[in-house]
Amino acid sequence: MPETQLTKAVPHFCRTSTSQYSSAQNTKELQPLMANPVQETTEQKKQQLQGPEKPNSHQKFKAKITQCLSYITGDMAAFGEWMKGQFILLQILDWVLRGAAQVMFVNNPLSGLIIFAGLILQNRWWAINGFVGTLFATISALILCQNRGAIAAGLYGYNGILVGLLMAVFSDAGDWYWWLLLPNIFMSMACPIVSSALASINSRWDLPVFTLPFNILVCLHMVATGHYNQHFPQILIQPRTSLYNMTWSELDYAKLFCSIPVGIGQVYGCDNAWTGGIFMIALFISSPITFVHATIGSAVGMVSGLALAAPFENIYFGQWGYNCVLACIAIGGMFYALTWQTHLLAVVCAFFCAYLGSAIANVMSTFGLPACTWPFCLSALTFLLITTETKNIHKLPLAKVTYPEKNLIYFWKMKKEERNDKQREKQEKMQVKDVESQLKKEEIIVAMEKKEHPDVFTVEVRQEETTQSRTNKNSEATELHLTQL
Amino acid sequence: MPETQLTKAVPHFCRTSTSQYSSAQNTKELQPLMANPVQETTEQKKQQLQGPEKPNSHQKFKAKITQCLSYITGDMAAFGEWMKGQFILLQILDWVLRGAAQVMFVNNPLSGLIIFAGLILQNRWWAINGFVGTLFATISALILCQNRGAIAAGLYGYNGILVGLLMAVFSDAGDWYWWLLLPNIFMSMACPIVSSALASINSRWDLPVFTLPFNILVCLHMVATGHYNQHFPQILIQPRTSLYNMTWSELDYAKLFCSIPVGIGQVYGCDNAWTGGIFMIALFISSPITFVHATIGSAVGMVSGLALAAPFENIYFGQWGYNCVLACIAIGGMFYALTWQTHLLAVVCAFFCAYLGSAIANVMSTFGLPACTWPFCLSALTFLLITTETKNIHKLPLAKVTYPEKNLIYFWKMKKEERNDKQREKQEKMQVKDVESQLKKEEIIVAMEKKEHPDVFTVEVRQEETTQSRTNKNSEATELHLTQL
Amino acid sequence: MPETQLTKAVPHFCRTSTSQYSSAQNTKELQPLMANPVQETTEQKKQQLQGPEKPNSHQKFKAKITQCLSYITGDMAAFGEWMKGQFILLQILDWVLRGAAQVMFVNNPLSGLIIFAGLILQNRWWAINGFVGTLFATISALILCQNRGAIAAGLYGYNGILVGLLMAVFSDAGDWYWWLLLPNIFMSMACPIVSSALASINSRWDLPVFTLPFNILVCLHMVATGHYNQHFPQILIQPRTSLYNMTWSELDYAKLFCSIPVGIGQVYGCDNAWTGGIFMIALFISSPITFVHATIGSAVGMVSGLALAAPFENIYFGQWGYNCVLACIAIGGMFYALTWQTHLLAVVCAFFCAYLGSAIANVMSTFGLPACTWPFCLSALTFLLITTETKNIHKLPLAKVTYPEKNLIYFWKMKKEERNDKQREKQEKMQVKDVESQLKKEEIIVAMEKKEHPDVFTVEVRQEETTQSRTNKNSEATELHLTQL
Repeated sequence: MPETQLTKAVPHFCRTSTSQYSSAQNTKELQPLMANPVQETTEQKKQQLQGPEKPNSHQKFKAKITQCLSYITGDMAAFGEWMKGQFILLQILDWVLRGAAQVMFVNNPLSGLIIFAGLILQNRWWAINGFVGTLFATISALILCQNRGAIAAGLYGYNGILVGLLMAVFSDAGDWYWWLLLPNIFMSMACPIVSSALASINSRWDLPVFTLPFNILVCLHMVATGHYNQHFPQILIQPRTSLYNMTWSELDYAKLFCSIPVGIGQVYGCDNAWTGGIFMIALFISSPITFVHATIGSAVGMVSGLALAAPFENIYFGQWGYNCVLACIAIGGMFYALTWQTHLLAVVCAFFCAYLGSAIANVMSTFGLPACTWPFCLSALTFLLITTETKNIHKLPLAKVTYPEKNLIYFWKMKKEERNDKQREKQEKMQVKDVESQLKKEEIIVAMEKKEHPDVFTVEVRQEETTQSRTNKNSEATELHLTQL
Repeated sequence: MPETQLTKAVPHFCRTSTSQYSSAQNTKELQPLMANPVQETTEQKKQQLQGPEKPNSHQKFKAKITQCLSYITGDMAAFGEWMKGQFILLQILDWVLRGAAQVMFVNNPLSGLIIFAGLILQNRWWAINGFVGTLFATISALILCQNRGAIAAGLYGYNGILVGLLMAVFSDAGDWYWWLLLPNIFMSMACPIVSSALASINSRWDLPVFTLPFNILVCLHMVATGHYNQHFPQILIQPRTSLYNMTWSELDYAKLFCSIPVGIGQVYGCDNAWTGGIFMIALFISSPITFVHATIGSAVGMVSGLALAAPFENIYFGQWGYNCVLACIAIGGMFYALTWQTHLLAVVCAFFCAYLGSAIANVMSTFGLPACTWPFCLSALTFLLITTETKNIHKLPLAKVTYPEKNLIYFWKMKKEERNDKQREKQEKMQVKDVESQLKKEEIIVAMEKKEHPDVFTVEVRQEETTQSRTNKNSEATELHLTQL
Repeated sequence: MPETQLTKAVPHFCRTSTSQYSSAQNTKELQPLMANPVQETTEQKKQQLQGPEKPNSHQKFKAKITQCLSYITGDMAAFGEWMKGQFILLQILDWVLRGAAQVMFVNNPLSGLIIFAGLILQNRWWAINGFVGTLFATISALILCQNRGAIAAGLYGYNGILVGLLMAVFSDAGDWYWWLLLPNIFMSMACPIVSSALASINSRWDLPVFTLPFNILVCLHMVATGHYNQHFPQILIQPRTSLYNMTWSELDYAKLFCSIPVGIGQVYGCDNAWTGGIFMIALFISSPITFVHATIGSAVGMVSGLALAAPFENIYFGQWGYNCVLACIAIGGMFYALTWQTHLLAVVCAFFCAYLGSAIANVMSTFGLPACTWPFCLSALTFLLITTETKNIHKLPLAKVTYPEKNLIYFWKMKKEERNDKQREKQEKMQVKDVESQLKKEEIIVAMEKKEHPDVFTVEVRQEETTQSRTNKNSEATELHLTQL
């Protein structure tokens, strides 16, 4: 009956709706279904908690901790669901916090809060600009009638926070120059426009837009005004035109070690090691895999800097790290399912990204521009476009991407289902063979009996043999034969 | 019968053929149908004129004026149709004139003629180069067997006129340097090649190529030769390396006002305010909506220039205006159906375009290049790639784009049809409900009667209930019941 | 029966598998079928040789020569087939040699060997770097599980050889600086990654990636390190900032003539005319059409250089030639079927490429970069994206591209088939008309007879007339009528 098919189809759609990345095209179909699945899971969780099995006190305590952890780790889906019933301003605050964390692919308001704390520690003026950027980017997305699910996941906010922050960081007018908020708001509100446009292009290859809108808009603002501008002067960036003398004896190992958290902090334009450390905590809360890859990425960036004879100050300053951090997170478990092959690929991508970072920084400096996160975007997009013939490098469809741990569970489930399907197919084949061999025996018997009453059987047997789904019908035919016998 | 379906399908195709933008892919199907619809409309017009209703003298006069206006406004479809029977050289002249106007998205030979008049007023040598460019671009498109409908709409000429004009404008060899015609002809003839190639890419997103071929080819010529070239030297353009001191007291309001027509004139590289005014007349003739958006765009550009602390000379010179003019026209009614939302979007796009214009001008000056119309192309393409969930921002399919007024009529018609469809659906649902409720009553009666003759009815009722198109069949079933009763 | 359909489908797939360009998407389906077709052709050849027809000694000699030639010319498919059974290291050597030749679109290990000889003549250190590059690019493709057919055709090696060679050519650290092998290996191994990513994009338009991976990676390495780098310094390239005084009397015609082979040599970064000559031999062996277009391209580049007032040294040095060589080969017979229209298009493309080459060289010099083969890639891609309404410019599907001569045979076969199809259609139409006219006659007879026995015929005739495939059935119907009569 058609109705049963419909109910079967729903869970399939529901699964997709938990993803944060839903391209603009399929949002219309997804929206009505978006509310259900998370609710279901929370209800299931409640059922699990209030279930009939009474555990002992130790197990109870453990379960309670797991339960509590599940509320603040991952993408905090339960919290997001609870937020849906709240006042709109509270909701927007949730979206802004998620947007702040989404820079690192983390869809978690608690991480966002911690990140804002880190930003305040670094520079309050920058933090304000970042907040204004996220807020107006989110509002602009609402005005432009973008997909509500994507907005709620902070996917329209993360470019806003970067635009706001980096415009403040690269401004040469000093802190607390309030006029800067004007271009800040304009550029933040342009974020969803550029995001939507780029998504139209990238969705053809099922790719995310990453921080491309931020890169485009900040570079646009900086190069449109430039260092010699009366209203919005930018810091002076010039190409290197002389040899940097690298003497290994001058290398400061403490600073080199510090460059790892600083590299993570530089994702948000922060050069304070403590801020970087706070960001690492924010990552760890949501997803340990993300945390590990961020650390590896930052280390790879530092090593690459040394290999390519970069000035030590740049390495200490984290300029070699932040792109590698993002690239390593993106490839290592976020958009590819984590296997040891994709883990290696993530490391290779981090090295490639460091190389590319140096190249882009040199090119951009000709125009007085910083590298922004262009190197990350280009290298991650390149590595996501690879097609191979191995199954161990599995690119997750964008609609299924959530966070590394959940992606991994999805991947394992998919693999298991495939294996089961294969086994079932095998078993079916075996059964079919059995049936066929039995059938042949029976046919011989039938053929023998046919000689006695040859008028009834012939037509039926002919018909059966020409049909495609031979086996099923054959078995039916056997039954027929048997009943007739 | 299949033949009736075919005749029904034809008008659907015909409607598309009136569009000037027909992507290269569907041209083969369109070509044989391209001649009919315009002819029909002219015939209809004649019928209207020679119709049986005899109006009084006042109405007659009014109708005559409307009629005359319809011959010279819009896309002058009647004239274009009449031209088809003329000598090929006359036809090419028509195409060249339309090409000249197509820079502003105007498909009107009269506007083209006025624009050439404006160019001659500005500089005769430039006008010659522009004419040669348009002519050879059109000829090259003919040689390359491009779609005849697109050529006749001037869609292969507008890049040619810009290439010809701007190569003359940016040449440092002085006017009447006849050798310049050689690269002019080569680059003009390359226009259709680049147009066709870009259309292959952009058509995947149903986007026009705008003036990208012109931008590519003029930048190519300028950077290939450069300022220090013996044969084809270019004017020297250098990046700004010092602070421009902006003193508001020095602002000349008369010049500032003049910058609006100058900005429109700069679309063709003309800095004469009168030329700009003539161009505005050319726009107004074809489409008042285009005229309004051109003026708004130029004003927005001027304001942006002041906001970003640009040197006053640049603003007076119209350098901040021309990209905004084109962007505002493109978004405001040309490729989006004009609603107040898209009107606002057009203004936002103009601001974005001004910002981008400043950025691109600074970047290009590093290579000794002008900004050309890159800012317009990139901003308009970005704004056309947006996807939203509101119906008020409706991107017209490229095959339906003609001119803002006609686009609007098409959009309204489409909306009306949709509304009608919905109402019809509603009514049908109501009817279905009526039928169903009636049916239930009857079924009860039938059920009651069935007890008396239970052998005939059961099978039929079962069959009906399992089918998808239940209602129709049910009503048939009722009839059946009734007849059987 | 379904099995017969399957066997019929196989030859269709087989035909595609002989191509060297099989996009990553359809490789999975192609791989199992890849081995067969070549084997078949070799078997056919053997059959031809050992066939029953006994030719006289002269014919025998001629056939033997043709046979021998067929073993070393073209893509040496027989050799490649024989290689499949050999030791893996020998196979890799074959792939490396084919990769070396694939830079010029030649899939021939003998040409690759000759090219390596030319490289050794030029500079042994460069040759080593080129070999290392090709080797590691091929190995990396194997590790990344790329399509084995594409690897065996050298399609993952040609970017590697260019990366290796040009990194050595542009290094400022002098020859035999062994550390250079480190970035060389890293960049070579990144080639298949970038190739695969670009193929994902370009395959949407059925375009090859050309040498884009090489361009991207070498530019990346050069700009990431730059002239002022301690570990990997690059040669200093600076933009021209003064007028070059061109005096025609100083033109050296001998050097100008030499610039043609030098231009071909510069494809591999070699400025030695003898090396260029050796490369020309390598081209001629595999495909005379390629050889002719390479020569024409180099000449066109030289002429363009003179026309655009380039310094004579640059022209002598072959800088104007190598891009035109590649562009002319690509358009003239390689990706378009060779007709005189595409031959002209190839010449135009070479001119366009020379223009673009000058432009890109000037732009890139701002960043201290050489033009690499960007001009070739961009101009060839542009010319391959053209869509026209003429059948004489026929872009071959990428899966059918082999070498110009074979492409031409494929194109002629296709044309012939089309013509045959048309003729057959015509004949069928004629026959149908005959049958129909005969049928009408018969129907009249039938109608006359029907009056006598009107009960049998009517139903059948009605049924026949409503079906789509009227003619066939009608003829059957006629037979029916006849038999019934």
